[in-house]
Amino acid sequence: MSTSVIILAAGKGTRMRSSLPKVLQPLAGRPLLGHVIETAKKLHADNIITIYGHGGDLVQKEFAQEQVQWVEQAEQLGTGHAVKVTLPVLPKSGQSLILSGDVPCISQATLQKLLNAAQNTGIGLVTLTLPNASGYGRIVRENGKIQAIVEHKDANDAQRQIKEINTGIYCVSNAKLHEWLPKLSNNNAQGEYYLTDIVAMAIADGLEVESVEPERAFEVEGVNDRVQLAALEREFQADQAKLLMQHGVHLIDPSRFDLRGTLVAGTDVRIDINVIIEGRCEFGDNVEIGAGCVIKNTQIASGTKVQPYSIFDNAIVGENTQIGPFSRLRPGAKLANDVHIGNFVEVKNSSIGLGSKANHFTYLGDAEIGAGSNIGAGTITCNYDGANKFKTVIGNAAFIGSNSSLVAPVTIGNGATVGAGSTITSDVADHCLAVERSKQFVKENYQRPQKIKK
Amino acid sequence: MSTSVIILAAGKGTRMRSSLPKVLQPLAGRPLLGHVIETAKKLHADNIITIYGHGGDLVQKEFAQEQVQWVEQAEQLGTGHAVKVTLPVLPKSGQSLILSGDVPCISQATLQKLLNAAQNTGIGLVTLTLPNASGYGRIVRENGKIQAIVEHKDANDAQRQIKEINTGIYCVSNAKLHEWLPKLSNNNAQGEYYLTDIVAMAIADGLEVESVEPERAFEVEGVNDRVQLAALEREFQADQAKLLMQHGVHLIDPSRFDLRGTLVAGTDVRIDINVIIEGRCEFGDNVEIGAGCVIKNTQIASGTKVQPYSIFDNAIVGENTQIGPFSRLRPGAKLANDVHIGNFVEVKNSSIGLGSKANHFTYLGDAEIGAGSNIGAGTITCNYDGANKFKTVIGNAAFIGSNSSLVAPVTIGNGATVGAGSTITSDVADHCLAVERSKQFVKENYQRPQKIKK
Amino acid sequence: MSTSVIILAAGKGTRMRSSLPKVLQPLAGRPLLGHVIETAKKLHADNIITIYGHGGDLVQKEFAQEQVQWVEQAEQLGTGHAVKVTLPVLPKSGQSLILSGDVPCISQATLQKLLNAAQNTGIGLVTLTLPNASGYGRIVRENGKIQAIVEHKDANDAQRQIKEINTGIYCVSNAKLHEWLPKLSNNNAQGEYYLTDIVAMAIADGLEVESVEPERAFEVEGVNDRVQLAALEREFQADQAKLLMQHGVHLIDPSRFDLRGTLVAGTDVRIDINVIIEGRCEFGDNVEIGAGCVIKNTQIASGTKVQPYSIFDNAIVGENTQIGPFSRLRPGAKLANDVHIGNFVEVKNSSIGLGSKANHFTYLGDAEIGAGSNIGAGTITCNYDGANKFKTVIGNAAFIGSNSSLVAPVTIGNGATVGAGSTITSDVADHCLAVERSKQFVKENYQRPQKIKK
Repeated sequence: MSTSVIILAAGKGTRMRSSLPKVLQPLAGRPLLGHVIETAKKLHADNIITIYGHGGDLVQKEFAQEQVQWVEQAEQLGTGHAVKVTLPVLPKSGQSLILSGDVPCISQATLQKLLNAAQNTGIGLVTLTLPNASGYGRIVRENGKIQAIVEHKDANDAQRQIKEINTGIYCVSNAKLHEWLPKLSNNNAQGEYYLTDIVAMAIADGLEVESVEPERAFEVEGVNDRVQLAALEREFQADQAKLLMQHGVHLIDPSRFDLRGTLVAGTDVRIDINVIIEGRCEFGDNVEIGAGCVIKNTQIASGTKVQPYSIFDNAIVGENTQIGPFSRLRPGAKLANDVHIGNFVEVKNSSIGLGSKANHFTYLGDAEIGAGSNIGAGTITCNYDGANKFKTVIGNAAFIGSNSSLVAPVTIGNGATVGAGSTITSDVADHCLAVERSKQFVKENYQRPQKIKK
Repeated sequence: MSTSVIILAAGKGTRMRSSLPKVLQPLAGRPLLGHVIETAKKLHADNIITIYGHGGDLVQKEFAQEQVQWVEQAEQLGTGHAVKVTLPVLPKSGQSLILSGDVPCISQATLQKLLNAAQNTGIGLVTLTLPNASGYGRIVRENGKIQAIVEHKDANDAQRQIKEINTGIYCVSNAKLHEWLPKLSNNNAQGEYYLTDIVAMAIADGLEVESVEPERAFEVEGVNDRVQLAALEREFQADQAKLLMQHGVHLIDPSRFDLRGTLVAGTDVRIDINVIIEGRCEFGDNVEIGAGCVIKNTQIASGTKVQPYSIFDNAIVGENTQIGPFSRLRPGAKLANDVHIGNFVEVKNSSIGLGSKANHFTYLGDAEIGAGSNIGAGTITCNYDGANKFKTVIGNAAFIGSNSSLVAPVTIGNGATVGAGSTITSDVADHCLAVERSKQFVKENYQRPQKIKK
Repeated sequence: MSTSVIILAAGKGTRMRSSLPKVLQPLAGRPLLGHVIETAKKLHADNIITIYGHGGDLVQKEFAQEQVQWVEQAEQLGTGHAVKVTLPVLPKSGQSLILSGDVPCISQATLQKLLNAAQNTGIGLVTLTLPNASGYGRIVRENGKIQAIVEHKDANDAQRQIKEINTGIYCVSNAKLHEWLPKLSNNNAQGEYYLTDIVAMAIADGLEVESVEPERAFEVEGVNDRVQLAALEREFQADQAKLLMQHGVHLIDPSRFDLRGTLVAGTDVRIDINVIIEGRCEFGDNVEIGAGCVIKNTQIASGTKVQPYSIFDNAIVGENTQIGPFSRLRPGAKLANDVHIGNFVEVKNSSIGLGSKANHFTYLGDAEIGAGSNIGAGTITCNYDGANKFKTVIGNAAFIGSNSSLVAPVTIGNGATVGAGSTITSDVADHCLAVERSKQFVKENYQRPQKIKK
């Protein structure tokens, strides 16, 4: 049976107090709506229909790369109205999941269960059992079968004791949506069209309304303000952390770990406190990440140890390298095996060969460094002339003295040596020593400046 | 009616195990007593009378700038005795709030309610309802009216079931304080004068004792040891974080956010994990603060993005600047719009003009930099001659090559260029190139030092 | 009576999903088994017998320095079997504590109570009372005396109401172990030898089985997977933090503090958020440690303030020094009193004399610096010639200009001055000025490079 996913994403989210439409607020670094679209894609939905309203331009722009059908809900006349505006593009057969763009954590597993459950009867919903269900629409059952959904304000005392609630996530046959939605009425206090009413229609038609419960309660939590957003962020992060730990990752403190993307980790990866992982990262076996590192879109091969407060962005790191603390790998940094990158070292768009070292205060930009070279403390590749960027090439087994400035374009040969404090503007051939330095001048009994009286 | 605030601040706080008087222990970066004085000031109290004892010199010195009347309690003979020593300076009319210097979170709103409640009857107190009230003095009521306060040890079984407790925060008419306090007795096991006894006196006088409850329980929590101090710090921080989120600030993790002062934030400000805000900070719209930043007394204009682990102190930052990671702005740093300050860059007492950049490893001290200039990696303003500090002036559209040393006082003109690795000791005129460099010397087939055998 | 400690450490820990044997997984920086051995040593156990199995080589290697007798359990045939394999080396008299290598937090105090309790009857165990004991072996008592331990699956309804459980920690007389263990049977569903069966044997022998409860529940928690390991790490850390706070240390957030070793702290030590302490550290009175510092095996004397994100390893720091932010002290860094070490400064194997300063971007390696000297920003001691390391000696009251390179071995005398930007290769005598610099060359109306068209 073909599957459509309908996502309600038209709300403004006034309580967020933001200029951003609510469904673009980020959870774990991705917009709320992005989580729902991602889940829809994992379900191999045949079409994903998103209902936009407030901030529709921004929303569509954010997801311009996604295969999404956009349907405008010009006026916000209720959830039933929202789904009704999709009818012109909704297939006549198959079934639809109806999701909310501000309920980002609903899982593929729960939705798959719902799809399966609703397949025969044509309608199902996700319900949740809560210790305190006050305020929510209750699921009224008789002999286990759903009889009605009663809003809290309409519920009698017995119904208010019910702990099973409606989460607003449905699976309905498209045929039924085409039949029921045009019949919705807004004859109620708020003058809105409620999607919930289709449950009553299903029951009136003699259909059995199926239901499933999510594995974890936070899957069905919605976001209406920043406090809820922050709370859901923590639940989402805790869940991700737990999955990684079950996979074997050693998180020193799962409540101080943020994964904003995907981490593929080998065996015995150890991650210290307050690490942030962004984008897609891959860590080999025995990789250790020190406290406070921020690592984005980076591959780190086995055995590498990263010391605290290192920041990587789009880097590729070899095996058994030692990096940090306070190191920064920027896009295009490519470290071979056994490389050492020390404190206060920045690497950008540069490759560093097997076993080479840059242990202190170094800026390597647009450089290509061979194997076994040593870059002294304070070395700077002067890659920018104010208008253009140029390349610095350093061979194998070179030794660059401390505080050197390598003015690109420049090549330092294999086995070449640069004296400390030199500004190198011409190529240095293999095995040569290059020094740029004056004679040391000495003045005896030098009188240092005195404090000027003001 | 005139309002006095009487603050009990004489205790030593032995359980803190500190050489500091208890009321000087900091909560959210401010002494406990400072929070209470601040709240008294917000209430526009006509006079604030603080009772000091242990460490009185230190306490008075800390608040030397505040309009506070200091009254010494030479011997610690109980809470009633403490308030009694204020009688010589206490007005005869009006009403007094009686607060504790170690109960720092009592809110202006709760106290205002208490002032209002006690206005007619002449006495009111703050009570709190707890799930487990064991150990506390219970509020005994009949027909809703307070009949007595019974200490836990004196309470019968029925009274021990009472969940409403006395918090020790009172509002009393000054006339009554002048009448009641001299009548307090220390005829009890501890030989102390208890302030609580005035409640019995009020009831004996046929007065109705009013009461109010605080909005949040932590308002009436006292601090006796470091464990309680840390717990209250977290409650206070959580409360502040919640207020900011309700205002629209996006805190990625409110439990990893510390505000030690005041933050005024525009729309869509995003603050990542483990940020500390100190003093008074103002952030414009769309400001983003990366993980682990520590920002004190700093203004940051709209659209500026600060990357992780940046530390600002008394800086002013323009719009749409990009700063960090690992940057440090020290007092007097003033950045115009569109400035870029990169990793491992320190700025002190320096202004940087529109669109200028210092992207790597730079120390700018006592410098004045125009618009559109580029400061190369490793540049250092040599502002100190061992005795005096001097200024470096750099014009517009200047280009300072990497690893340069600018020996102040020195001026680099508009459009001027400094060659990489130069030490500049003389002014460089507009549009000139200045280089300090020797000829690059080369030695072929250079034999590098060998490992010395030991 | 002589005391033996028998530690079960043969398990593989499959659920950890690690290549490391379970007992080598670290808690607070020390292997699980290391915690148990440490506790055994504190009890002055006469011998510590550790039963190894999976990964035995690694385990023995890790504890090669410890006075431990190793006994192999070649096949894992149950806890009773594990203890039975120790009989050949177990003394005939005295008593034995039977502990688990994966229950790391059992305290000396609890075990001492157990030793005392079991001394007369010959058998005792640690029990725990839980709100929900489902799944655990229950302690069945009559008139307060232990009658049996019943596994959950064998328990009847009444027994399942029992909240007191067996923790698997025993104290047994060695004579009884020699008598009972050979009689254990594996005639059960799993075909294993259960240590629990000795309790039934004791009761059958008419012995009274003593019991003690641990002060804190986490003492008896075992570790089977990474989720449990992380949870126990937090409980252990919270407990350590509480002890420090009770001792008087001001932890700004005890839930963001990690102690992986021992901290000896004076009065009024203040530790900000996210600090990690490793190894053995000692802090004098009034020491302040800023947010995010990582401090290992370091002594810091009274009055010293360390700013955020400083990393120390095997350093010794004097009184009233000011360090950081972003500073790094590596092994052998030795700072006298009143020293200033500023941002982006690295010190390795160097001593810095009274009141000397290195405030910005400096690498001091293998240096010896006297008192009252000032090391300018960007100074680098060039201590490595590619093969050997050499020493830099700087006297008292020296002034090293910014961006200097000091090529070791080199000595800068007392009161000597080095001009900014100099590379110093020859010794500088007392009170001399040394400069290595060329004439500043100027080119007027210099045309800077233009953007190359591609």
